[in-house]
Amino acid sequence: MYRIILDAMGGDNAPKAIIEGAVLALEEYPDIQIQLVGDRELVEKHLAEYAYDKERLCVVHASEVIEMAEPPVNAVRTKKDSSLVVGMNLLAEGKGDAFVTAGSTGATVAGGTLIVRRAKNVLRPALAPVIPTATGCALLIDCGANVDCKPEQLEQFGMMGSIYMREVLGIQNPRVGLVNNGAEEEKGNALTKEAYQLLKKADLNFVGNVEARDLPLGACDVIVCDGFVGNVVMKLMEGCAVSFSTMLKREFMKKTSYKIGAVLAKPALRSFKKQMDYTEYGGALLLGVNSGVIKAHGSSNAKAIKNAIRQARTFTQQGTVQLIKEKLSQLS
Amino acid sequence: MYRIILDAMGGDNAPKAIIEGAVLALEEYPDIQIQLVGDRELVEKHLAEYAYDKERLCVVHASEVIEMAEPPVNAVRTKKDSSLVVGMNLLAEGKGDAFVTAGSTGATVAGGTLIVRRAKNVLRPALAPVIPTATGCALLIDCGANVDCKPEQLEQFGMMGSIYMREVLGIQNPRVGLVNNGAEEEKGNALTKEAYQLLKKADLNFVGNVEARDLPLGACDVIVCDGFVGNVVMKLMEGCAVSFSTMLKREFMKKTSYKIGAVLAKPALRSFKKQMDYTEYGGALLLGVNSGVIKAHGSSNAKAIKNAIRQARTFTQQGTVQLIKEKLSQLS
Repeated sequence: MYRIILDAMGGDNAPKAIIEGAVLALEEYPDIQIQLVGDRELVEKHLAEYAYDKERLCVVHASEVIEMAEPPVNAVRTKKDSSLVVGMNLLAEGKGDAFVTAGSTGATVAGGTLIVRRAKNVLRPALAPVIPTATGCALLIDCGANVDCKPEQLEQFGMMGSIYMREVLGIQNPRVGLVNNGAEEEKGNALTKEAYQLLKKADLNFVGNVEARDLPLGACDVIVCDGFVGNVVMKLMEGCAVSFSTMLKREFMKKTSYKIGAVLAKPALRSFKKQMDYTEYGGALLLGVNSGVIKAHGSSNAKAIKNAIRQARTFTQQGTVQLIKEKLSQLS
Repeated sequence: MYRIILDAMGGDNAPKAIIEGAVLALEEYPDIQIQLVGDRELVEKHLAEYAYDKERLCVVHASEVIEMAEPPVNAVRTKKDSSLVVGMNLLAEGKGDAFVTAGSTGATVAGGTLIVRRAKNVLRPALAPVIPTATGCALLIDCGANVDCKPEQLEQFGMMGSIYMREVLGIQNPRVGLVNNGAEEEKGNALTKEAYQLLKKADLNFVGNVEARDLPLGACDVIVCDGFVGNVVMKLMEGCAVSFSTMLKREFMKKTSYKIGAVLAKPALRSFKKQMDYTEYGGALLLGVNSGVIKAHGSSNAKAIKNAIRQARTFTQQGTVQLIKEKLSQLS
């Protein structure tokens, strides 16, 4: 049995979508059990609407909720009875295998570091979302946990990301690329020039520098960069998807024949939109802490939560944390 | 008369598209004259195909060409008779008002700095392309001339960019935004936290931090960032446009009704594509040198070259270099 701890209170659609996601996951995966952490009364009221295997789901009460806008470190330190802190404490005490939340990203990183704690030999945990590309998907590491990085951290990001893509997403020999302002080895800023040399020597399928232009085309499976650049990459891809569809829609509205065309092609447009939808790919991993911590998108619906639970299950099943620890111990 | 120096040999479609662009510009703007720099025989052979005002166009011979892949600084130093170096020397000697090239970006930056030289009080020249957004366009500064920046450089980028958008693109009180990993003042890495404080105090319409998600939506008119981040922003937007249209096309091909829909909506799709087309907006400016240096896209067609010449003309007409010098002298 894989024991998933689920933050019932985090995210825009909590607790309804979270609880529905938990029920869907229980149906689909007979080898998991879920601890739903949140306001017991509220959670049980929602649970009453569903039929599910009661042996495999329990509710753990937490009286507080960390809001999206709260300063993360402070929130984790003061809201001891929040669903996020209670859930992470369960994880740290070994009462579960992985923790899933759609709540505040900052609080997830802060809680992961302060409560679950970084794994041995890891310099700094990194936040790594799976992002859609034209050929499938790629892991972006780091996307915001570390805005100022040392070259050695980028080397570790490459290693942790490579293990994740191989073990959890089943990609053989993942191609690790370094985001840079040119493809040639000598290109880059002070950070990427040094990181290049470390990644080149590491036991990795390092494909060298990757220019941002080639990221959405699927140039590599693991996209290595500091958290500032990763944040720009992730958010800009989201922004482009939104602005492109806005612009496209505006064009379609200009003439009746375009409108008819758009209606005929609608399923194709919808399928395209689905490919661009982050929630299809599960959540972002907090890699480099002592257990699985998965941050689902804030706007997650039930299906996205179910996908994040699947991700937590595979992460646990493959012993990803242990593999990361072993790999990084070779470095020191 | 505005005297434009044009590199006839730079870019994927040189010299044909460059020469055609020059002829188009002469027709449209009666107040410009053009010096075409390149292999005289070749240039004159192409020119023979067009009717144009011979009083306003002359050819300056240059026997060499700087190729795209050459190490920029070395190329500028050794290829003394290249079209880029000859053209920039004409500019530096006051024999022209602005220089336009579709050649190597690196060589343009190197030549601008070594030959045209940075303007007084400018810490470092910056490369600034105009990029399309959902509401119009914005200036991205810097997009790659300075991959490691100090906060004071970012402050100057904001000032130079603001002057450009006001004087050349006619945007009143341009909104200057700092690319950051969060909207709140306290967000950022070491560089952006300090730059925020400088930009806040500067005589600018500073709208604060802008997250990458909001850039393509038109959140600001001047997008300030270091050259590494700017390079990621520019290339990722290009890459998203390419990958999105590839994915969209793939979806359209899946069923006959989608195909018919796509055919009906084709003009709308084409108009959308045109909005995403960089060449429509002219070239990238090298701001902070002693004269106008404009880098047109490497794949520029004749129309893109004409647009870059228009940009060079307005840049000169408005006395942009002098305005930048005056503004930055207030800082020191």
